Amino acid sequence: MKIQLAIDRVSIQEAISIIEQVEEYVDIIEIGTSLIKEFGMASVREIRKKYPNIIIFADIKTMDEAKYEFELAYRSGADILSVMGASSLSTIRTCQEVAIKYKKEYAIDLLEVNDEKLHRLEEFDDAIKCIHASVDDNNVNVEALLKNTKKKFRKKQRISLAGGISLGNIPVLLKEKVDIIVVGNFICKSNDCKASSKEFRDALSTK
Amino acid sequence: MKIQLAIDRVSIQEAISIIEQVEEYVDIIEIGTSLIKEFGMASVREIRKKYPNIIIFADIKTMDEAKYEFELAYRSGADILSVMGASSLSTIRTCQEVAIKYKKEYAIDLLEVNDEKLHRLEEFDDAIKCIHASVDDNNVNVEALLKNTKKKFRKKQRISLAGGISLGNIPVLLKEKVDIIVVGNFICKSNDCKASSKEFRDALSTK
Repeated sequence: MKIQLAIDRVSIQEAISIIEQVEEYVDIIEIGTSLIKEFGMASVREIRKKYPNIIIFADIKTMDEAKYEFELAYRSGADILSVMGASSLSTIRTCQEVAIKYKKEYAIDLLEVNDEKLHRLEEFDDAIKCIHASVDDNNVNVEALLKNTKKKFRKKQRISLAGGISLGNIPVLLKEKVDIIVVGNFICKSNDCKASSKEFRDALSTK
Repeated sequence: MKIQLAIDRVSIQEAISIIEQVEEYVDIIEIGTSLIKEFGMASVREIRKKYPNIIIFADIKTMDEAKYEFELAYRSGADILSVMGASSLSTIRTCQEVAIKYKKEYAIDLLEVNDEKLHRLEEFDDAIKCIHASVDDNNVNVEALLKNTKKKFRKKQRISLAGGISLGNIPVLLKEKVDIIVVGNFICKSNDCKASSKEFRDALSTK
């Protein structure tokens, strides 16, 4: 089970300072959509330059112009990119093609995807499927969302889960065999990012 | 009928040079998603600084974190922002609230929106509805898309139309009373942006 740290709503320098502290305890660094939209690809390039060997997920949330966006972000140094499951199948197919061409990974964000589309997305079996509780919808229970979504898939998927994850979710995450856990505020908004990332890693390992 | 010039896949300096040439012939300057994702809010701020009085549409395509993204982009100088119709109703409602608070406009991009959602979106009657032929789907006929989508609305909407628009589409655009025509490559990829923007403006006026 991998830990993906989602970094949002900070400057690139602050992001670098967070990475400095947590690098040894997390597996994937997510450059959140807020950094992409505020600073563009400079966020990816500067973090890549500072950390040549980390795995970078750039949450670019592609909806259209897949080839341009994906090539741009892979060339800027990202290892994994996101496309919205709500975008057209031709957009997602293009993302898949670019990922294969660049020998990189891609993730399909399942925000607002209905059941019919969810089943269509199973054909993209090389993609990480991101089950994602929206920041804008406080009523979503992330554990219920995980269980409900998993139930709908007809075959095994590589799954990541995002949306207000903290230590209390770990038992369910383990039981449900989530592949990638996306942690944000629990680490980034704590007083001590290093301590809280270690705490999360230890809690995962000892269960 | 307004002309919105969509500027994509160029540097900020090239965008400024295009605006310099076309400013008198277009009503709205769209900073395309490709510029937002490549350069972030610097694209909006630099163009705003250079042109304090133009109307700027920043195509940020919000899917989540509506408050953060909309406040950031309005503060950076945008007049009109886009949210995806495929995002949750709570995301779109937050965009509406921020737009009202900032006394600015917002547009709902109808890419991949199904009929049921389209009807729900009618409650956002202060929004521009962007009928949008995807760049990634070559099979979409933009005029047919316009007619089909308009037919589904149960009351009058403010409509913009985007997707490979050129001079040949003008008769249908006029007949269908589109409020905002989004023109991209026809102007931006021509050898003479000024001449082609004037040509488009003249063709609209003389019909």
